[in-house]
Amino acid sequence: MDASDIRLLSAGTALPGPPVDNVTLARRFGMDDLWQQWIDVFIGTRTRHLSVDLDTGETVVSLADLGERAARRALSAAGTDAADIDVIVMGTATPDALMPATVNEIADRLGIDQIPTYQLQSGCSGAVQALEVGRQMLAGGGHRNALVIAGDSCARHFDLEADLRSLPPAELVNVVLFGDGAGAAVLTSDPAPGTVALRRVMTRFTGRGRAPGQIVRWFGQADRAGRAAGIGEAAVSEDYKAIEESVPEMAAEILAELLDSLDWKDTDLDFVLPPQLSGRMTARISERLGLDTAEEITCVGQTGNCGNALAFFQLEEVLGLLGRGDRAVGIAVESSKWIKAGFALERL
Amino acid sequence: MDASDIRLLSAGTALPGPPVDNVTLARRFGMDDLWQQWIDVFIGTRTRHLSVDLDTGETVVSLADLGERAARRALSAAGTDAADIDVIVMGTATPDALMPATVNEIADRLGIDQIPTYQLQSGCSGAVQALEVGRQMLAGGGHRNALVIAGDSCARHFDLEADLRSLPPAELVNVVLFGDGAGAAVLTSDPAPGTVALRRVMTRFTGRGRAPGQIVRWFGQADRAGRAAGIGEAAVSEDYKAIEESVPEMAAEILAELLDSLDWKDTDLDFVLPPQLSGRMTARISERLGLDTAEEITCVGQTGNCGNALAFFQLEEVLGLLGRGDRAVGIAVESSKWIKAGFALERL
Repeated sequence: MDASDIRLLSAGTALPGPPVDNVTLARRFGMDDLWQQWIDVFIGTRTRHLSVDLDTGETVVSLADLGERAARRALSAAGTDAADIDVIVMGTATPDALMPATVNEIADRLGIDQIPTYQLQSGCSGAVQALEVGRQMLAGGGHRNALVIAGDSCARHFDLEADLRSLPPAELVNVVLFGDGAGAAVLTSDPAPGTVALRRVMTRFTGRGRAPGQIVRWFGQADRAGRAAGIGEAAVSEDYKAIEESVPEMAAEILAELLDSLDWKDTDLDFVLPPQLSGRMTARISERLGLDTAEEITCVGQTGNCGNALAFFQLEEVLGLLGRGDRAVGIAVESSKWIKAGFALERL
Repeated sequence: MDASDIRLLSAGTALPGPPVDNVTLARRFGMDDLWQQWIDVFIGTRTRHLSVDLDTGETVVSLADLGERAARRALSAAGTDAADIDVIVMGTATPDALMPATVNEIADRLGIDQIPTYQLQSGCSGAVQALEVGRQMLAGGGHRNALVIAGDSCARHFDLEADLRSLPPAELVNVVLFGDGAGAAVLTSDPAPGTVALRRVMTRFTGRGRAPGQIVRWFGQADRAGRAAGIGEAAVSEDYKAIEESVPEMAAEILAELLDSLDWKDTDLDFVLPPQLSGRMTARISERLGLDTAEEITCVGQTGNCGNALAFFQLEEVLGLLGRGDRAVGIAVESSKWIKAGFALERL
């Protein structure tokens, strides 16, 4: 046990609007009961929260709104004042704008100034990447308290007038799989007793020679005018076959590597935070992990896949459950270009 | 002098296509000699390189193409094999896609695998932010050699069919101000004698309560379909008045802070790498800095404002000029939400 490990003081989360269930979504897109049952069975997501008003199609909540709310909750739960934060790291695949980085809009709203801020362009491993950059900033000794934020909004790609009957299945899935949300955490280099140590963080590109499992595009002025290369391309493409084949095995490898590096046995784990691509995939992954004694913490059935935010929903829950000496492992797999990520926690 | 300072072994850069001069640009947009003279006098950029084919409007070079070329040059100049790199940090405002991060596409092409990769969403301070994240990763002791990459492409927002006569001046400037390019550098924790030490890196958000000086938007499937909020908005908005008023003063403050933290006098400086928003602005900033004895290193007259890449063009040049004991300071100001950034170099 290394007393100098960085501590994870708190986590906070935020979701836009009320939960949108499958019946509501089916009605909004003019789809029938069969479609709704298909979501239940094959996706396993019961509700999600959206930044888009389903009546008007307008984006009513920004990523900065969500990030700010999550950050305030995390700061409050940690008992840390915004003035004590000396570095911020954010992860997202869907910033409000390319410039300025959303992290700076959030910093401004929190009344934070004169500190370094970083925003990672990241997907399902983004929460872990942001935790690791935050941890490194503290480990180097130059900073004491880091605010880590992560979140995503599918609003800009969520086309309410899409004709779902004409969409290929791979694109249809995108309409029901994703949700919007944000999370945040406070890290500190102060080794107070009773706090949760971030014992390991790993994030590693493993995509050499592999085609992306997920591509999310953005369009510019030239594309919008219908003149550039992007116009004919799907905004979001997923290779669900590759994802289904690879992710459970990758999750098992991440778990084994984390346990091995800490000399922990799988029966030492009290909690596991599995990857949450969808309710159904998470169930398959959990089966593959085969952790009989560790309690599983998931949220995807309620939140949908909110990308960078997901791990913070799990963290918020597990922080309330971890007793002294309890251990947890979190696992994330980013299929975009195949990143293995994970972390290990222990309350000291 | 701290022997443990991280070393900057090399820098490499890449530009797409041939230089595009103001006459060519004026002709392509059907503008007259007066417009061309206006660029010469008020912008001060003589050429830029573009990822777009001016005849067809097609994007012929991607950011991954540019980043890969710059990275190969930096690796070669450092005499470092790609296999020895154990972390990559990239900065860009204009990734090829939202997912996967462009850094991972570049890693794949370089044959790099099984290491952490990070991509920052950053603007004019992005090169410095990426250097600092790379530096922190090495300073923590967990990594030995970092590849830092930075670049931008305005291709997706570069609308060749825009009617420049109908554009307001603030948008007109965007057509001539920007260029595409990428840069890279190799950092190491190995304190070999004769190498250049990265004596200081600073990056600090200073935008509390200030409106953004630059906004660059992206559009999604819903915006493209003409249904969401973004459709009426300009892709790129700049507050040139605020930029002209603030940036020279901020640059002087960054210089003073860097010198002060190292106990260097301005006459100790052999080279200065000023911010390069445009040729004209750089001249104004240099005047404000008032460094009579330090040689100025700029490239914006030839490359245009290529955002995240700019500092690497300056670094590539200054690394060839820095003799033993020579000192240089680089300064960057990001107007998007007002970030102060800079670094100090010394050949030991």
